[in-house]
Amino acid sequence: MEQIKIFSPATVANLSCGFDVLGCCLDNVGDEMTIRQNDLNQVRITKITGQDLPLEADKNVAGVAVKALLAAVGSLKGFDIEIDKKIKAGSGIGSSAASAAGAVFGVNKILGDPFSNMELIPFAMEGERLASGNAHADNVAPALLGGFSLVRSYEPLEVLKLPTPEELRVVVLHPLIEIKTKDSRSILRQSVSLKKAISQWGNLGALVSALYTENYGLLGRSLQDNIVEPVRSILIPYFDELKKIAVENGALGFGISGSGPSVYGMCRGDKNAEKVRTAIRDFYKSKDIDFELHLSEINKEGIKILS
Amino acid sequence: MEQIKIFSPATVANLSCGFDVLGCCLDNVGDEMTIRQNDLNQVRITKITGQDLPLEADKNVAGVAVKALLAAVGSLKGFDIEIDKKIKAGSGIGSSAASAAGAVFGVNKILGDPFSNMELIPFAMEGERLASGNAHADNVAPALLGGFSLVRSYEPLEVLKLPTPEELRVVVLHPLIEIKTKDSRSILRQSVSLKKAISQWGNLGALVSALYTENYGLLGRSLQDNIVEPVRSILIPYFDELKKIAVENGALGFGISGSGPSVYGMCRGDKNAEKVRTAIRDFYKSKDIDFELHLSEINKEGIKILS
Repeated sequence: MEQIKIFSPATVANLSCGFDVLGCCLDNVGDEMTIRQNDLNQVRITKITGQDLPLEADKNVAGVAVKALLAAVGSLKGFDIEIDKKIKAGSGIGSSAASAAGAVFGVNKILGDPFSNMELIPFAMEGERLASGNAHADNVAPALLGGFSLVRSYEPLEVLKLPTPEELRVVVLHPLIEIKTKDSRSILRQSVSLKKAISQWGNLGALVSALYTENYGLLGRSLQDNIVEPVRSILIPYFDELKKIAVENGALGFGISGSGPSVYGMCRGDKNAEKVRTAIRDFYKSKDIDFELHLSEINKEGIKILS
Repeated sequence: MEQIKIFSPATVANLSCGFDVLGCCLDNVGDEMTIRQNDLNQVRITKITGQDLPLEADKNVAGVAVKALLAAVGSLKGFDIEIDKKIKAGSGIGSSAASAAGAVFGVNKILGDPFSNMELIPFAMEGERLASGNAHADNVAPALLGGFSLVRSYEPLEVLKLPTPEELRVVVLHPLIEIKTKDSRSILRQSVSLKKAISQWGNLGALVSALYTENYGLLGRSLQDNIVEPVRSILIPYFDELKKIAVENGALGFGISGSGPSVYGMCRGDKNAEKVRTAIRDFYKSKDIDFELHLSEINKEGIKILS
């Protein structure tokens, strides 16, 4: 194999009580990437469509991630990477993660799978480090593994794949304003009250239980974040109204996707997700902000090979 | 039924990363209680053996808990409660919880089960409020439900019963020194770093996953507490040495039980638990502190009816 074309999915990280540790993979939003071996012993970003992003490999998340992988196997091979960005940069649904994870996935396939998808996570995280200054795993892990990913520990890195209840659907609203991940991190308080932290880990424990038992009610009650959401939501236009509308229309939970500005509603079943999507759309159309709206199943397999 | 005799088990709460939310139920340590209806329309603690505790119902955790239950059903019936305390007060393995939970369990049975065991938790928590000033649920819940209990939320109260991996064994060392729960709480810092909190909830999420998947290795890696243990462990003689010994002898995890001074080692299988127990005993025998040592399976059913 000398060339591979893939779909690399968007992801929702920082899932409410799972701030910094829990993310899930979307199914119908993602980048398309073509990766082929070249004879130049160089990693090149040969083409990017859809977004204005750096073509220089050392300044591009895909380039940095692939170089980390090649260094680990001691390969001098070169690769050309084309990215059709369907996920907008700065959207909060894992745009940089999709490029970084997709690139290492593709190169790994061409190299004959020296690494498992789980083992590719640290390489993809190097892309995240470039993008945000923080090598977080909660977008690249669900992109590579599919479903829900939990980062138990960063040092050493340990990521778990959790089960996906069949009927879950995710509605994502992306208000077309930009919040830089770096800025969004900087407004967080570096300490939290013990009481709120206890409430957060009680909810996360329950959320994990809900995924194993397909208990949608419990899942909804657990999707709370009383630490980060109150701070970051002020950066998102009409967050409180959106949450109210989503919950009133039956969403199990609602929160910030990644570091925003996208927000997500977790829903049970297509019918409810469609209702939530419509209500959010109708509300936001009355505001003076452009937006994109996605409705997706949870993608259980992660990155997909197109050809 | 006018009389019931029960075994009300000891419990290990504050299970490392599950501080304030996660506890488990022991099988061979517990109080024996006899509860019988009287004709006096009074709740009386008629006898306590094994410990010097108040007989006045309003100052006894069992009395307070039963009165809360009777008030909820509007019953004017009276009950005599005898407690043979096998769990030492202030041990950190749920002594007050066993009395409070056992009392409401017994009275509920005599009344014809108006409440489920889950519904009895709030009444038993009133005993905890009397004992420590804090109506926590992470001892009374596993005593009433058996196995592992997770407190998702206190307001409103929601408790989950989690699965119990078959091979788990618990070694508990109780150094015979007294630490009051109130004192042990007062040394806790009221705020924690966001970074440590994230690590704590990553571990708790993974621990819940490990219980569902019977993944003992993951369970061991998850049993960490970098928030409370570093502070409270200074009150426990030789904590660091004990932890080292337990882990070197193959314990999956080791931490403080409740608010101490008891410590627990979580082990896989009887053989390993026996090895850990012996190593801890041999070490502590060389110190000038009296102690008790327990080795127990996880009690899956909770309070047991003896007659």
